[in-house]
Amino acid sequence: MSTKKRPNSDVKEGRQPAGTNGREVLLDAASNLMIETGSIDVSLHQIARRAGLTAPLVKYWFGSREGLLLALAERDVEGPLSQLADLMDQELDPATKLRIHIHGIISAYAQFPYLNRLIDQLLWDRESEGSKVLRARVIQPIARAQRTILSDGVAAGQFREVNVKYMYFLIVGTCHYIFSTRVGAYEVFGVPRITKEISLDYAAFATDTILRGIST
Amino acid sequence: MSTKKRPNSDVKEGRQPAGTNGREVLLDAASNLMIETGSIDVSLHQIARRAGLTAPLVKYWFGSREGLLLALAERDVEGPLSQLADLMDQELDPATKLRIHIHGIISAYAQFPYLNRLIDQLLWDRESEGSKVLRARVIQPIARAQRTILSDGVAAGQFREVNVKYMYFLIVGTCHYIFSTRVGAYEVFGVPRITKEISLDYAAFATDTILRGIST
Repeated sequence: MSTKKRPNSDVKEGRQPAGTNGREVLLDAASNLMIETGSIDVSLHQIARRAGLTAPLVKYWFGSREGLLLALAERDVEGPLSQLADLMDQELDPATKLRIHIHGIISAYAQFPYLNRLIDQLLWDRESEGSKVLRARVIQPIARAQRTILSDGVAAGQFREVNVKYMYFLIVGTCHYIFSTRVGAYEVFGVPRITKEISLDYAAFATDTILRGIST
Repeated sequence: MSTKKRPNSDVKEGRQPAGTNGREVLLDAASNLMIETGSIDVSLHQIARRAGLTAPLVKYWFGSREGLLLALAERDVEGPLSQLADLMDQELDPATKLRIHIHGIISAYAQFPYLNRLIDQLLWDRESEGSKVLRARVIQPIARAQRTILSDGVAAGQFREVNVKYMYFLIVGTCHYIFSTRVGAYEVFGVPRITKEISLDYAAFATDTILRGIST
């Protein structure tokens, strides 16, 4: 039960291909359940049953349900954050960087439609381990990257002066809502889930609109 | 327990000023609890206790927790929807109408930061009474108004051709996220809740950016 004693507590250490150990099997089970049910409210019992394992094993690997949720969020953002770090190292003009950044966020939500809600829930209790980890490793790096891109864009004469804090909410709100609202797919597009095709098309539209919105 | 027998099931009939009957007292209690806790997960028991009433009385007025949540959502959107209907009747150019519409949405979320999540949860079960009511009385009127404004704007040469469905998600995502995410107020602005001043300033920024984003 102690979170200190759980093995392999950092998702980035000792990660193996999906299905090769109980840890990955459980994360995949949780991820798939969240996608299928359209909700992050899945129980340890449901996750264990889907993975063909038992609830005590979840506690063995992750310490608690929150431990598993945090590991899932960290696993899901690993690729997108690494791409963002690479993007920041590239010699590209700020408008192109912002375009690629927005596409990257939408692509992450398209793959993990529950991700925005999951992170939001983990951030809820500001004093919790999950909240501290996510603020330091996810929210702050994204906010920092946006600040750099936006100020470089102003310096380059590509962007008008904008409030960087507001841009964070405008960008993330624009990117996540189509995937996380329950009104989306069914009501508007007549499909059970936002398809790859819709998500790419929406990404092109959203990127274009935001870029026009802040261009000089 | 029967939802059919509950009195005064339509929030628009027989509505009285807040505090003059148990129904309004309960809706105010639920609303205030959601604002204070930053969550829509408030129990009938909490709501009744806050209102100084008993849980059976909640069932008497609303039939169930879902009945109360639906009545709350309907009460909260009543003013904004009536303003939208008035806006559509006015002789204004489409860009000005869109500007006022976006300000109206942000103003509603500023007043009821839980509203987006509340509606989203009620929409979840497509066959439920709440979902049908909200789709017919809230989602569809908003989508219809946006379609009209956008096509009028294209006809008037103010807007470029845009996908109206995508615009719905872009507008609502842009408007709600700053109010409903738990990362917002504390982390970014250092305040417990988004203030009136921030919400007005954000509304000006968001409106301006979206308008520029779709203008010709």
